[in-house]
Amino acid sequence: MAQKTTIQEFESVFPKLEEVLLEHAQSYKLPAQALEWYKKSLEINAVGGKCNRGMSVPDSVSLLLGRPLTEDEYFKAATLGWMTELLQAFFLVSDDIMDSSITRRGKPCWYRHEGVGMIAINDAFMLEAAIYTLLKKYFRDHPRYVDFLELFHEVTYQTEIGQLCDLLTAPEETVDLDNFSMEKYRFIVIYKTAYYSFYLPVALALYMLDLATPENLKQAEDILIPLGEYFQIQDDYLDNFGLPEHIGKIGTDIMDNKCSWLVNQALAIVTPEQRRVLEENYGRKNKDNEAAVKKLYDELQLEQRYKDYEEKVVGDLRALIAKIDEAQGLKKGVFEAFLGKIYKRSK
Amino acid sequence: MAQKTTIQEFESVFPKLEEVLLEHAQSYKLPAQALEWYKKSLEINAVGGKCNRGMSVPDSVSLLLGRPLTEDEYFKAATLGWMTELLQAFFLVSDDIMDSSITRRGKPCWYRHEGVGMIAINDAFMLEAAIYTLLKKYFRDHPRYVDFLELFHEVTYQTEIGQLCDLLTAPEETVDLDNFSMEKYRFIVIYKTAYYSFYLPVALALYMLDLATPENLKQAEDILIPLGEYFQIQDDYLDNFGLPEHIGKIGTDIMDNKCSWLVNQALAIVTPEQRRVLEENYGRKNKDNEAAVKKLYDELQLEQRYKDYEEKVVGDLRALIAKIDEAQGLKKGVFEAFLGKIYKRSK
Repeated sequence: MAQKTTIQEFESVFPKLEEVLLEHAQSYKLPAQALEWYKKSLEINAVGGKCNRGMSVPDSVSLLLGRPLTEDEYFKAATLGWMTELLQAFFLVSDDIMDSSITRRGKPCWYRHEGVGMIAINDAFMLEAAIYTLLKKYFRDHPRYVDFLELFHEVTYQTEIGQLCDLLTAPEETVDLDNFSMEKYRFIVIYKTAYYSFYLPVALALYMLDLATPENLKQAEDILIPLGEYFQIQDDYLDNFGLPEHIGKIGTDIMDNKCSWLVNQALAIVTPEQRRVLEENYGRKNKDNEAAVKKLYDELQLEQRYKDYEEKVVGDLRALIAKIDEAQGLKKGVFEAFLGKIYKRSK
Repeated sequence: MAQKTTIQEFESVFPKLEEVLLEHAQSYKLPAQALEWYKKSLEINAVGGKCNRGMSVPDSVSLLLGRPLTEDEYFKAATLGWMTELLQAFFLVSDDIMDSSITRRGKPCWYRHEGVGMIAINDAFMLEAAIYTLLKKYFRDHPRYVDFLELFHEVTYQTEIGQLCDLLTAPEETVDLDNFSMEKYRFIVIYKTAYYSFYLPVALALYMLDLATPENLKQAEDILIPLGEYFQIQDDYLDNFGLPEHIGKIGTDIMDNKCSWLVNQALAIVTPEQRRVLEENYGRKNKDNEAAVKKLYDELQLEQRYKDYEEKVVGDLRALIAKIDEAQGLKKGVFEAFLGKIYKRSK
């Protein structure tokens, strides 16, 4: 059984990468004040999350090899993992500005730190740029270097079109339920979340081991994209039906006018009367309006609807995993590990 | 004599590139509303500038070859030119938010368009991503493809560290002249402007023709970076001493607390009494304060100081150009063309 990395082990790699990034800035004689700023931005924005995406790179590499990693292999895989965390940091710092968010990981969002404000936009750019500095430093001579570069470019772009669609579909100020649809919902979830959170880490692991044949990449994508969709639907479900003490926050999707799985499911089955309840209460920053929507969700039995969906999709995913062709080095265990972490999670 | 491109000719290439970018988005089934948005962002933000940076790519390619370009060569060179314009658009859209700017190219800044707001941040990202989509489409098989990718990554990063230093040195709210220095000024100018505006277009031309030997790149950099510095110093000079009817805007550097060449020159030669005038009047959004600074600039004879600087730097640049080694295909004419466009410009 391949070893699973821990957050401690994964985080222990970061100081070396930070050193490389700061040395790169110093090579241009970046003034001290700016260098300190960059260091702080890296430490606050890239570190401190659960690192599920990042850690899934060394985990996947280990599962593909069927053995624990050597020190050098672990460092390389974790470095690729940290690049996915940097990509996420780039998105989170800027999404928080675009969404006027207040807190992130239990602390104020970066743009709300004293003296930061809109400088956070440039800080987000520099988090993205760090990916390519690290790729050049550690993978310049890797036979799949160009593929690594193109993969990051494409996944970045995919996440951006997902975010664009999300911003246009659910603007915080104007509530227009006609704008929502399951089709748009799926587009947003797949591009804004599934590619960078699920496909990217496994594709990186495959490229690192030079196992990224077109067939293996296709098989990975065909499972990881629906898996990512399931993950986000679950997230939307937990926002309303999860326990705050489990999910670590109080859900605000209803008040925030989010194009959530729940509201889309509701829209598909409401009577004209129930639709009026949604129209009048969704996306209002008010506890009473929110309670009316929650009550409607209960009437519509959305909790059961979610549970039925979950059983169905997990069955489908298990069938897809069972059919995987391992002839070119892909391993079912990679996908079983992802599914195992997600199925029936409560946080 | 190699032919010089015109803005009409250069702009005529854009519709094809736009088509490629929109097709790329459509290949992911981007919903119609989002596709329309992306099209509008591309047209408003990438097109409509003077395109000096973009046009200098086909101009440089033509000068390097010593002949007019074939249709295919022109298209390729102009495509690289449009990538520099896309990079600039990415920076301008986001800089305008960070600087709270009001207008750009005589129209409202993109983030100030009806309904845009902070979505402009994601639009800026997508302008950057467009560079890599076009590079992959047209240069995937070019022998210097990896160098193109790394060049764009590095120049993007250089511009970002320049912008970071600028934002930290001259925040609009807090005036602190102790924060300014010629050393920081040079850092900001070189990284925020010179690399992407001057070095990038010539490096692209050299890579396109596979003439980018380390020696040629080094010679280009050694001339284009001081040339870019001269260009920005001239810009700062024109902001105060240029004629609004020539430069097409009314200079606001004094009121905006800009770390300009003029204020740095003033700081280097002021008496304690004159320093007090600066302390009390620089960076205030008030015509009387601005007039006091302008009067001081006149007393300090900064106009003459600039003219002396200009003669000196142009002499140095001509000497550098004269010494260029053309053995590996570099041409003095490339640099003479840049210098000719800049020397004694009034707009």
